[in-house]
Amino acid sequence: MKDDFEELKYAKPDTGRKERTGFPEVVFCPGKKDAFLAGIFRTLYEKNGEVLGTRASEHQFRIVQAELPQAAYDAVSGILTVESGGKTQAGNIAVCTAGTADIPVAEEAARTAEFFGSKVVRVYDVGVSGIHRLLAQESVLEEANCVVAVAGMEGALASVIGGLVSVPVIAVPTSVGYGASLGGLSALLTMINSCANGISVVNIDNGYGAGYIATQINRLAEKGKTK
Amino acid sequence: MKDDFEELKYAKPDTGRKERTGFPEVVFCPGKKDAFLAGIFRTLYEKNGEVLGTRASEHQFRIVQAELPQAAYDAVSGILTVESGGKTQAGNIAVCTAGTADIPVAEEAARTAEFFGSKVVRVYDVGVSGIHRLLAQESVLEEANCVVAVAGMEGALASVIGGLVSVPVIAVPTSVGYGASLGGLSALLTMINSCANGISVVNIDNGYGAGYIATQINRLAEKGKTK
Amino acid sequence: MKDDFEELKYAKPDTGRKERTGFPEVVFCPGKKDAFLAGIFRTLYEKNGEVLGTRASEHQFRIVQAELPQAAYDAVSGILTVESGGKTQAGNIAVCTAGTADIPVAEEAARTAEFFGSKVVRVYDVGVSGIHRLLAQESVLEEANCVVAVAGMEGALASVIGGLVSVPVIAVPTSVGYGASLGGLSALLTMINSCANGISVVNIDNGYGAGYIATQINRLAEKGKTK
Amino acid sequence: MKDDFEELKYAKPDTGRKERTGFPEVVFCPGKKDAFLAGIFRTLYEKNGEVLGTRASEHQFRIVQAELPQAAYDAVSGILTVESGGKTQAGNIAVCTAGTADIPVAEEAARTAEFFGSKVVRVYDVGVSGIHRLLAQESVLEEANCVVAVAGMEGALASVIGGLVSVPVIAVPTSVGYGASLGGLSALLTMINSCANGISVVNIDNGYGAGYIATQINRLAEKGKTK
Amino acid sequence: MKDDFEELKYAKPDTGRKERTGFPEVVFCPGKKDAFLAGIFRTLYEKNGEVLGTRASEHQFRIVQAELPQAAYDAVSGILTVESGGKTQAGNIAVCTAGTADIPVAEEAARTAEFFGSKVVRVYDVGVSGIHRLLAQESVLEEANCVVAVAGMEGALASVIGGLVSVPVIAVPTSVGYGASLGGLSALLTMINSCANGISVVNIDNGYGAGYIATQINRLAEKGKTK
Amino acid sequence: MKDDFEELKYAKPDTGRKERTGFPEVVFCPGKKDAFLAGIFRTLYEKNGEVLGTRASEHQFRIVQAELPQAAYDAVSGILTVESGGKTQAGNIAVCTAGTADIPVAEEAARTAEFFGSKVVRVYDVGVSGIHRLLAQESVLEEANCVVAVAGMEGALASVIGGLVSVPVIAVPTSVGYGASLGGLSALLTMINSCANGISVVNIDNGYGAGYIATQINRLAEKGKTK
Amino acid sequence: MKDDFEELKYAKPDTGRKERTGFPEVVFCPGKKDAFLAGIFRTLYEKNGEVLGTRASEHQFRIVQAELPQAAYDAVSGILTVESGGKTQAGNIAVCTAGTADIPVAEEAARTAEFFGSKVVRVYDVGVSGIHRLLAQESVLEEANCVVAVAGMEGALASVIGGLVSVPVIAVPTSVGYGASLGGLSALLTMINSCANGISVVNIDNGYGAGYIATQINRLAEKGKTK
Amino acid sequence: MKDDFEELKYAKPDTGRKERTGFPEVVFCPGKKDAFLAGIFRTLYEKNGEVLGTRASEHQFRIVQAELPQAAYDAVSGILTVESGGKTQAGNIAVCTAGTADIPVAEEAARTAEFFGSKVVRVYDVGVSGIHRLLAQESVLEEANCVVAVAGMEGALASVIGGLVSVPVIAVPTSVGYGASLGGLSALLTMINSCANGISVVNIDNGYGAGYIATQINRLAEKGKTK
Repeated sequence: MKDDFEELKYAKPDTGRKERTGFPEVVFCPGKKDAFLAGIFRTLYEKNGEVLGTRASEHQFRIVQAELPQAAYDAVSGILTVESGGKTQAGNIAVCTAGTADIPVAEEAARTAEFFGSKVVRVYDVGVSGIHRLLAQESVLEEANCVVAVAGMEGALASVIGGLVSVPVIAVPTSVGYGASLGGLSALLTMINSCANGISVVNIDNGYGAGYIATQINRLAEKGKTK
Repeated sequence: MKDDFEELKYAKPDTGRKERTGFPEVVFCPGKKDAFLAGIFRTLYEKNGEVLGTRASEHQFRIVQAELPQAAYDAVSGILTVESGGKTQAGNIAVCTAGTADIPVAEEAARTAEFFGSKVVRVYDVGVSGIHRLLAQESVLEEANCVVAVAGMEGALASVIGGLVSVPVIAVPTSVGYGASLGGLSALLTMINSCANGISVVNIDNGYGAGYIATQINRLAEKGKTK
Repeated sequence: MKDDFEELKYAKPDTGRKERTGFPEVVFCPGKKDAFLAGIFRTLYEKNGEVLGTRASEHQFRIVQAELPQAAYDAVSGILTVESGGKTQAGNIAVCTAGTADIPVAEEAARTAEFFGSKVVRVYDVGVSGIHRLLAQESVLEEANCVVAVAGMEGALASVIGGLVSVPVIAVPTSVGYGASLGGLSALLTMINSCANGISVVNIDNGYGAGYIATQINRLAEKGKTK
Repeated sequence: MKDDFEELKYAKPDTGRKERTGFPEVVFCPGKKDAFLAGIFRTLYEKNGEVLGTRASEHQFRIVQAELPQAAYDAVSGILTVESGGKTQAGNIAVCTAGTADIPVAEEAARTAEFFGSKVVRVYDVGVSGIHRLLAQESVLEEANCVVAVAGMEGALASVIGGLVSVPVIAVPTSVGYGASLGGLSALLTMINSCANGISVVNIDNGYGAGYIATQINRLAEKGKTK
Repeated sequence: MKDDFEELKYAKPDTGRKERTGFPEVVFCPGKKDAFLAGIFRTLYEKNGEVLGTRASEHQFRIVQAELPQAAYDAVSGILTVESGGKTQAGNIAVCTAGTADIPVAEEAARTAEFFGSKVVRVYDVGVSGIHRLLAQESVLEEANCVVAVAGMEGALASVIGGLVSVPVIAVPTSVGYGASLGGLSALLTMINSCANGISVVNIDNGYGAGYIATQINRLAEKGKTK
Repeated sequence: MKDDFEELKYAKPDTGRKERTGFPEVVFCPGKKDAFLAGIFRTLYEKNGEVLGTRASEHQFRIVQAELPQAAYDAVSGILTVESGGKTQAGNIAVCTAGTADIPVAEEAARTAEFFGSKVVRVYDVGVSGIHRLLAQESVLEEANCVVAVAGMEGALASVIGGLVSVPVIAVPTSVGYGASLGGLSALLTMINSCANGISVVNIDNGYGAGYIATQINRLAEKGKTK
Repeated sequence: MKDDFEELKYAKPDTGRKERTGFPEVVFCPGKKDAFLAGIFRTLYEKNGEVLGTRASEHQFRIVQAELPQAAYDAVSGILTVESGGKTQAGNIAVCTAGTADIPVAEEAARTAEFFGSKVVRVYDVGVSGIHRLLAQESVLEEANCVVAVAGMEGALASVIGGLVSVPVIAVPTSVGYGASLGGLSALLTMINSCANGISVVNIDNGYGAGYIATQINRLAEKGKTK
Repeated sequence: MKDDFEELKYAKPDTGRKERTGFPEVVFCPGKKDAFLAGIFRTLYEKNGEVLGTRASEHQFRIVQAELPQAAYDAVSGILTVESGGKTQAGNIAVCTAGTADIPVAEEAARTAEFFGSKVVRVYDVGVSGIHRLLAQESVLEEANCVVAVAGMEGALASVIGGLVSVPVIAVPTSVGYGASLGGLSALLTMINSCANGISVVNIDNGYGAGYIATQINRLAEKGKTK
């Protein structure tokens, strides 16, 4: 019995990505073996000087930390970063959640955007069942270049925010809920059918994707199309 | 070839229903043949002194009107009524819609409740994409014994209203929308998953059902359990 | 690595809720960390003099009990309460189940309603496959201000009760069943499509929501609109 | 351009079926061309001395009648028969419907069973929202060798009947309903998940299939296994 | 904290069922507590002289065996029986499976039918991908009063059997399969849409239900309608 | 108002396709405007010396025939061809259907394969409810290089054929059926879950796609990989 | 019978929207009555000096044109505009389609963006089944501030574009396709699950929504956050 | 309690399969008991001189190895083989994956094809979000007799490959993904709706099935129809 995963030449790292898109390659951690994970982080760190990992476990953090002591980890979102420091964050992205249970996904979005150089304002627990909490933050939202709206259950937050701001809203349905929430599918349908303008949707629990798009927009707003 | 639908003894009218439940039998008009429809309206009118028909076509209205000249018809909702006049309406039910396209269903709810003796306040076109329009009506909503929230597309209206009032909210998803609205199923899922308290849901486009339940609650609030 | 969930300022407690709606804030226990749960219960107890927690585990009960010795727990429903005693219960809500497996959800509804001051009558194991058991309870149902119908599998109980009573029926589909029950979705569809009048539906297994709405209706029936 | 459907040798009539199964081949009429339909009826009539057609239109009836004057037609169910008379019907099958809108499907079942030699008792409009109407027929149901339960909307009728009788219940979901009835899929799910014993289900609106199976059972009960 | 499940008076045993339907009450074992399970078996045994339990675990078998030493258990199907011996089995039911993985469900059907007094012939592993294996058993199938067809994956077995026999076929979809089998839903849809006559369907993995219905039909074929 | 569809430069014809893949570009006719359709056929005929159109209406046939008199049309399948004659057909593809209603899709497959130079044997109306009809054709199937299995309703035909032959089976679900056939989705699920080896599936009613793949395989079997 | 839709005070025009969001109110034309449509266009034209209508029929265009002779109409997309001329378009949005059948939705997006002042480059018929056509346009895509990817059937275009550009991609699934395309739902699922970064999704056929968001991003890229 | 699975005569091994189809019987390992598994491998090895097992666990490998020391195992795919050596592999099958997470399924396909005597070229991690990686392998794909395309998430790989090659593409959706990937159903729908020619689809994660069909095609291409 052999288990020569490496010998399969299973991966074709996209080494030109940072130059081509302005974003370095990111590591999706679930299911990756320990030795392999450490190797990937080291390789990418040597090449890019920084690495972003998503959905990492605490065990995986310790594996990477043993290799790269400057690694940092956020247990709420599972974001695992290796950075060289001195990074500045520009622009303005607002990340909102409907409830506290949506925060892990929101933090994935926020920390992804921060890693990519965006300044992020968090507006959490402003779900539509207590609409005054959201309205109290209206001026905060109006200053953003892009708003990320994270919500599970009925996912109505995106529509309300879409009616308050003039910038794009990236809606992230979450799997928070039970019964007919269908693992987030109901929130996804809510958001896709939004009656408000300016709302587009990413996959369920895909905080990373929302943080990425928000950064693309934030950069365009700050620096225009420079590439 | 025979077409003896009547001879099938196809129906068993629930003649004791008004005594038992406080609500007379109602006629669901679609698909009923002209002669049969006229007969049902006459029979029920003779028995109860009033008749409510739902989802009637203009053609069906004219058939009934030929039989019972005092018949009245609302083309928006398809509500066809025969009443003897002098009816008073008590209590307070608020019927809200997200958009103008939801009004036919809302009118079915409102006119059903009015037929059953409820006073109805209409609050239309207050969808969540322009939340200030709804908030401007907050005091109106607070006075109601029950609120009916009618919305298609993403159906978020129910959740926002649920957070504003202390009385039951009857949510009615509508088939307004396209694409992933799935004929109203998306709005239904939104409402069933609502993060707000006090919300229960009826079938897609079922304005009649919502008007009925709202009347049950309105009567309890006005007169208590009196049956 | 830091895990400073508190520092995220993740929650915006709705402190005016009891004044605004007549219902204090309720704690949905699943996923809440021990220290945090204890803190929430203490804070809410100091503010409201009572706390209701739903879907608590036995472990969570012991955590809260260590903080507030008067805490009580029902292992069937997962309802965790802290009350100061001397509470009276008024009105009349009937909570029915189709089978014994639906009882945990029914108890969540019943104990929620009791916590909020409603008197509850339990009518369990009266599913439609032995309809005489339900009919034997008809007089009990007729005295209620509101009926909660809890059923899984095919969920037909709500329709039959809807035909027996003149008050609103809150239907709660449960995830009891297997195969094509689709985790409760089939029962939900049954109830949403009910041919009976007066039935509205809440999410699968949402006993809490049904107990809340039943209490709203029960209060209106007992005291009218007094807020 | 040629349109030589016949030349395709498109069909392989199962000429041994009546001998093998005790049931002659039946004609599903929708979509069949006029000339072809007439030919099929003539051929089968010559071979079997009788023909059963299902879901025929009035136009198709007239086409067949021109060929075989003794043809008869029921416009409610679309059943088109050619029989030589003197047929006797034995046994006892009860066909029940929840509402009047389910009658076309029920008649397809009833007339299919009658064509195949079964005696049928019709119990229509006994839906569960007025359960007393059904219970009043309990003695009728108890005499049947098999019960066919036809219902749309929430489809709860099958479960209630299943609890009342000791013989098999063939449940037929119908496409009657709107919104979340999903074209009969909700009723099908209700019936498949029935909590009662003795219930099996056929396709939506498949009255023919139910009449066929009911006849199989009725024959076994009357004559035993005689093949 | 109390856990007084018994005090909830949660169950209303249907004591007249055996007299009314000819079948004693059956115990669905999953989720039942040890003490309670033992009590139910003892009570039913004292009343009926025999008990049938379905989906029992080996642990549950040992609990019941400690109470009633004559208890017997089949680990494949989870059928747990207590019988007094000397039971004779009459008639002829054929239980077929497509593959070996469907056998647990088939055994639930077979042993249920045997408990209720039916003689059962097993025809296993005759799926349609090797149709000659099924055809070799054609004479066995032809002798049955009723055939139970158990199949997962694509569930085509029922249609083929339906074309071979003249008696009712009870189709049982199983959850055997992966990917697009959707937990048995695909097999259920296959069977509901069968092009063959005489097929009706029960819930996914519901061997018990199929054994029950097959017994109803078997009894009618053997003894006619005698109740 | 302008309607300058042509000016939109809406299409980028894949002129190198025949050289690249061995198959000329094919015209999907539905929705194409008359003038545009005629132009496409003329252009492709001039370039390739032959044209294949799918799902053409009779009206479209006459439009093309006016332009290219040698056009031919099959009304059953909607296949519209322009060929120069003298084409020879090689190899052996068997196209089977479960019922006669599946023939239009089967003819689309057969005539597509014939246009591309394959010899086709038709085996129609051999559905699994009368399995002996299929088995009588076993020797015909065994001679084919590839079998196309076309079936609606429960779609079981593909599995049975898969067990009879050693060559690839291309399964085509059709939208034939009603109720829970879900427009062909049930047949698609049946075929995707097939327990037989050697079966792959194309879209519902996609006879063209099956004829194309069958030709690819037929060519490989006849000529090997020659491109 | 009265038909006083206007008297219902059915609409609450959002008169402050252009000031608040930078976009004037847009008219969704389907279902609007002629007189009402004309009134809305006149009112909005007087207020904003321009009006955009979506999904208008040719009949509706003539109604509006009779009121406002400068109205213009695109029959492909159903876009109906009234503009005062002299509008300049800035920035760069690329609108791509997979096939020609997707063009109506793409034109809705393109013309919406143009109405709102964006310069649009069209890249049509570059679906992934002939990937070289798309790659030949890579330099055009790279110059855009935002790309709109419109595709039905399997909807793979968005993922490929997402891998080619560094700016946000707005994916629009279309209802183009048949069978398992499920009215566009399959394409929506493809796009939501995209393995590429930078992709967010709007509702099926929602060209308007995509054009709106693309304009928001295009403005940010050209002018930064200026509101 | 007895557990006599063997005595059930549960299986009917298809001993003539290798002669009939050219493929020996294959062992689907999950759920098989240790002793039984060892017996099956020994029996098949004695009969065929080689055995292929799929989805085996490492534990199962050790059980078989104790019986047949020459057994080999691939932990990535779960393929367990017993071969006598000296096997040659002919033809050319290309197995491609979109990402590294799809490799286990791809290896199941590749090793199945190799076991059956096919030469396999692996082209892994060439998903459409970095299309240049795939295009760099175009010449490799062009040499294959058949291409297997394995992809999860949005599954777009199959369409792109279908546009590049002239031979059949067997598409294998995988369950790789999260949220709206629906366990692979979204990828399956993408592939079934492919706009490219020459693509047919097998069940989610069914690498074995794809390897089998690819071998059938590869053999036809190498040796023609020889059986």
